[in-house]
Amino acid sequence: MSFARLGDPGAEIPVLRHDGSVYDLRPLTADITGAFLADDGLARARAAAENGELPILPDAASLRVGAPIALPGKIVCVGLNYHDHAAETGAAVPAEPVVFMKDPSTIVGPFDDVLIPRGSTKTDWEVELGVVIGTTARYLSSPEEALAHVAGYVVSHDVSEREFQLERGGQWDKGKSCETFNPLGPDLVPASDVGDPQALGLRLSVNGVERQNGSTSAQIFPVAYVVWYLSQFMVLRPGDLVNTGTPAGVALGLPDTPYLRAGDVVELEIDGLGRARQTMVQA
Amino acid sequence: MSFARLGDPGAEIPVLRHDGSVYDLRPLTADITGAFLADDGLARARAAAENGELPILPDAASLRVGAPIALPGKIVCVGLNYHDHAAETGAAVPAEPVVFMKDPSTIVGPFDDVLIPRGSTKTDWEVELGVVIGTTARYLSSPEEALAHVAGYVVSHDVSEREFQLERGGQWDKGKSCETFNPLGPDLVPASDVGDPQALGLRLSVNGVERQNGSTSAQIFPVAYVVWYLSQFMVLRPGDLVNTGTPAGVALGLPDTPYLRAGDVVELEIDGLGRARQTMVQA
Repeated sequence: MSFARLGDPGAEIPVLRHDGSVYDLRPLTADITGAFLADDGLARARAAAENGELPILPDAASLRVGAPIALPGKIVCVGLNYHDHAAETGAAVPAEPVVFMKDPSTIVGPFDDVLIPRGSTKTDWEVELGVVIGTTARYLSSPEEALAHVAGYVVSHDVSEREFQLERGGQWDKGKSCETFNPLGPDLVPASDVGDPQALGLRLSVNGVERQNGSTSAQIFPVAYVVWYLSQFMVLRPGDLVNTGTPAGVALGLPDTPYLRAGDVVELEIDGLGRARQTMVQA
Repeated sequence: MSFARLGDPGAEIPVLRHDGSVYDLRPLTADITGAFLADDGLARARAAAENGELPILPDAASLRVGAPIALPGKIVCVGLNYHDHAAETGAAVPAEPVVFMKDPSTIVGPFDDVLIPRGSTKTDWEVELGVVIGTTARYLSSPEEALAHVAGYVVSHDVSEREFQLERGGQWDKGKSCETFNPLGPDLVPASDVGDPQALGLRLSVNGVERQNGSTSAQIFPVAYVVWYLSQFMVLRPGDLVNTGTPAGVALGLPDTPYLRAGDVVELEIDGLGRARQTMVQA
């Protein structure tokens, strides 16, 4: 079972997908918002579907796939969270999570175009496990408490402009918040359906050439640790998105640094969370 | 003339203040949102008040003062934007703006308590000119175009935890997004009423001792440049907040680094934008 949002940008319809059927969630909620997640919306939706209380959405297959959550209050990202990625970028393995942020309005659908920023020569890819917060996490006592605050997981593409990030003034955010730089989805899969978030393979290819092939088992700081850690520095609120880092294989770390160009096609997937595909377009 | 939001957290009433009167804006808008600003809401509100179309809000003086804008889509901050502040922190004068972000949910009212984070020993103050975006700014051609995209200005307190910011992993956001770390207001003053944004004095005191006393005339990158510059890296959207940096006098740069403790009272003001006052409380 999974959740998605289908339709034109800004007018997406929330749906539940199960056994090949697409159920319209609008009898339950206008959108997949933080408030819906905090109010146990995913479980209520599952029960409603199982009880036959949700209508089938007609022509679902013809609709654009949007990001599976409404605009989050924030996107928090963890940098250098895989040993092999830290090594390829020449960075030391961090002693504690490196934290940065992205503009929430960078989120687009999983099959939407991604814009290469004007003046960019180093637009890079990063497949990441995205964590969607379900209930407020504030000063959690231990990592053991953290996963209870996770609503679900999603394929997240933390598109990055390396010159803007690393050569233009010292803070990474500048290269992380360009327009369309966070394709998200296709589906939000409830945490209860994902199982162990540290046993998920992540893969990304560019123009059919595999570039990243890792596993969340290689995360330096696992999801539970990240959520607990972040809760010591900020309040994680329902609907917030946490991008948990990328494995090795980004352009920055490859021979000849094959950064993205207009027309390139990036495909990415995570075990159990589905597959996304974006075409690069010049802004 | 200025705009404010009065009432309990989450239930603020939008108002217009003019010549000592407080007008209820609810006949025009449910809140001071980006959509209201983009739809020329401030000018429409002014006209409605002048035409006697807005009721007086009774008992306005008894209501809590909230932040003067609804939750923004993002808060973008410029670091080290005053020569004297760069010097006191030991940083070089930046060649271009240093950009970082704050969690939008850190915004609280101008007289609300500020929480000293658990484990914090270096909570610091920063009075800043806050810029509220009125219309979408994307790849602006020149700084000369930028001020037309500004709805108004506001006193912004970019509270910062220096250990979290500087000693805990390399990116500043970690020390900028703690709960309650962006008191905002009291008022949003329309750009047309502010005049030159580079001629505003900013002052901040702690327990009655003046700590910061600067002028936006000393900004390294003026507001128009900052808005133009940011628009090359991200889309600035209506309702977004840009914090434009702080002048010298923060605890980090003072002898004995007198960081904030529970019970300390911070007062801050900017010419023409009003005065705010926050008490520090242990989280």
